[in-house]
Amino acid sequence: MPYSRKVRQQESHFGTIRGRGELALLSEIRARAACAAGRGRNGGLRLGIGDDCALVAPRKDEELAITTDLSIAGRHFRLDWHQPEAVGHRALARGLSDLAAMGARPVAAFLSLGLPRSLTIASGRRQGSSGSWAKRFFDGFLALAEAHSTPLAGGDLAESPLAVADIVLVGAVPRGRALLRSGAKPGDLLYVTGTLGGAAAGLARLAELAETKPGCPNPPRIPKKLEAALAPHLYPQPRLRQGLWLQRRGLASAALDLSDGLSTDLAHLCQESGVAAEVEAALVPVHPAATLDQALHGGEDYELVFTAPASARLPRSIASVKITRIGRIVKARRGQPALTLLTSQGPQPLEPRGWEHFS
Amino acid sequence: MPYSRKVRQQESHFGTIRGRGELALLSEIRARAACAAGRGRNGGLRLGIGDDCALVAPRKDEELAITTDLSIAGRHFRLDWHQPEAVGHRALARGLSDLAAMGARPVAAFLSLGLPRSLTIASGRRQGSSGSWAKRFFDGFLALAEAHSTPLAGGDLAESPLAVADIVLVGAVPRGRALLRSGAKPGDLLYVTGTLGGAAAGLARLAELAETKPGCPNPPRIPKKLEAALAPHLYPQPRLRQGLWLQRRGLASAALDLSDGLSTDLAHLCQESGVAAEVEAALVPVHPAATLDQALHGGEDYELVFTAPASARLPRSIASVKITRIGRIVKARRGQPALTLLTSQGPQPLEPRGWEHFS
Repeated sequence: MPYSRKVRQQESHFGTIRGRGELALLSEIRARAACAAGRGRNGGLRLGIGDDCALVAPRKDEELAITTDLSIAGRHFRLDWHQPEAVGHRALARGLSDLAAMGARPVAAFLSLGLPRSLTIASGRRQGSSGSWAKRFFDGFLALAEAHSTPLAGGDLAESPLAVADIVLVGAVPRGRALLRSGAKPGDLLYVTGTLGGAAAGLARLAELAETKPGCPNPPRIPKKLEAALAPHLYPQPRLRQGLWLQRRGLASAALDLSDGLSTDLAHLCQESGVAAEVEAALVPVHPAATLDQALHGGEDYELVFTAPASARLPRSIASVKITRIGRIVKARRGQPALTLLTSQGPQPLEPRGWEHFS
Repeated sequence: MPYSRKVRQQESHFGTIRGRGELALLSEIRARAACAAGRGRNGGLRLGIGDDCALVAPRKDEELAITTDLSIAGRHFRLDWHQPEAVGHRALARGLSDLAAMGARPVAAFLSLGLPRSLTIASGRRQGSSGSWAKRFFDGFLALAEAHSTPLAGGDLAESPLAVADIVLVGAVPRGRALLRSGAKPGDLLYVTGTLGGAAAGLARLAELAETKPGCPNPPRIPKKLEAALAPHLYPQPRLRQGLWLQRRGLASAALDLSDGLSTDLAHLCQESGVAAEVEAALVPVHPAATLDQALHGGEDYELVFTAPASARLPRSIASVKITRIGRIVKARRGQPALTLLTSQGPQPLEPRGWEHFS
């Protein structure tokens, strides 16, 4: 059900049993989304919030890429660790990163949000509060949406004892040109964008910070000097420009985004392509605050990993994000591990050890 | 994250901490979805489960209709009232009904599912059990999906203390031909498909049945003689054929689906169209088991309500579902209620009183 219906319903007959704060939130979402949708219309969104469905019209010769990502309190984020703006940002970043990995441009986002009533009510008691948890969630969500010209086209809103956010992203890509996981070939070289392990290192720092106030229901205030160290975890940047660049140039033979960690995600790419990969430990662009282990296995960096033929000329950076060759694709051999780490002590199997959440 | 990644992750490193039942479920979902996706490919789904995004290519001159619906345990369904097959059916029916209301044909469904681990494990203790709760949820979900040629193209799966299901439906409709809420004009006649109030009456019977075993965590077994009475609530039928028929003929000026009840949903249509409506109580096709009150205010019938010019010739039924004229569209007047019920005692305001869930 579109938000608009909930808004009107509540105005009509839920006004008495729901708080004014929630009502104001719903009206505000609709107004802010309508504003963003207006700017997004030439991107393909023809009709946003207000009817049974949104309408999306890809350009001639385009197809649509669609992905969903579910975020659950206690599993993908913690109310006592994460500021609501970061939760909103991260929920959207997960979906945008999937579009980036396909080389798609964002067309529209949909958000289904289930929240305890208490999170929809502004409370002066919440540390650093400027509006309800829900309003601050949307602040984070919409700031990232606006940075990538992604209108919020619809969604659903319900009261729920547990905070849950399901994000749907719709992107557009020229037909037959999407970056898939399945195109890597032996002899291709292996690349990543940016640096790895920063999100895992940031998460470790955040956990330390939260432990200074055990049992406190509110997330810790982030000291200024820690903001940069925590940013890769709290505010990851989906690599949409880099994915689009690769798709337009037709240089990448396969790609995916690093949500669960290099060792886990690269194994997926190898499986879909029917190949194996060798990663050179010395080449991995480890984030300055991270360890090699965090770079290899830490999740949620949302960098792109991609393959390209050895003949392809790749720049050192794309849209100000550096590109690093970290290894190569080789033939898959029965009974051999899909991933090998080449170290100064010789080759060793690289086992998938990614995807750690907060449970 | 597509299911496929979760499957492989768990095969690779979550096999020990997750039950074998869940692993089997994930593999089964992928196999069943892939099978359905194969059949759906000529409908517009080019790439299903297995990459960062699914790819959907509408036909030339088509646009896509997209909707999301969030179902939360305790709010939209109850684990102690509803058989898992019905929960799966109802979650999908909500989304398909939104497509029907736009006159769109289904192209693909996505499902984000958060479940407590216990619901993913087959248990002989569960009454009438044949497999885990999750497997039975998918039985209900996929049976309806297959009936409407709707492949499951992707989604997300996570462990969650609370059962939540967010459904995304993607449909296709010729550009500019979708049935909107905003086109009704004074003088248009007002119609509904099928009968109204059956879902509310069924829910009332289900509540009575559940009360015979208060505190029982399992839903009651439905006696054979009650199956027909409960069907409108447990297994509502989205009116896709009827919506498509109206869209192709171009007869309807506005349409929406009855998810929250006639008095609530018709008010939305009036608001979007800037009109008012008169409903003749004697014309409302009340379900044989329901009261007029349930027909006017009961939610979840998932029938279509639509308007058409008085000159339009509408058949008595479309694809075996009867069509009933129940009133007409009139000019909106400032300070007057949007909806009026014409009764033998004269006209009276029809206040929105729909949308009752299980909270």
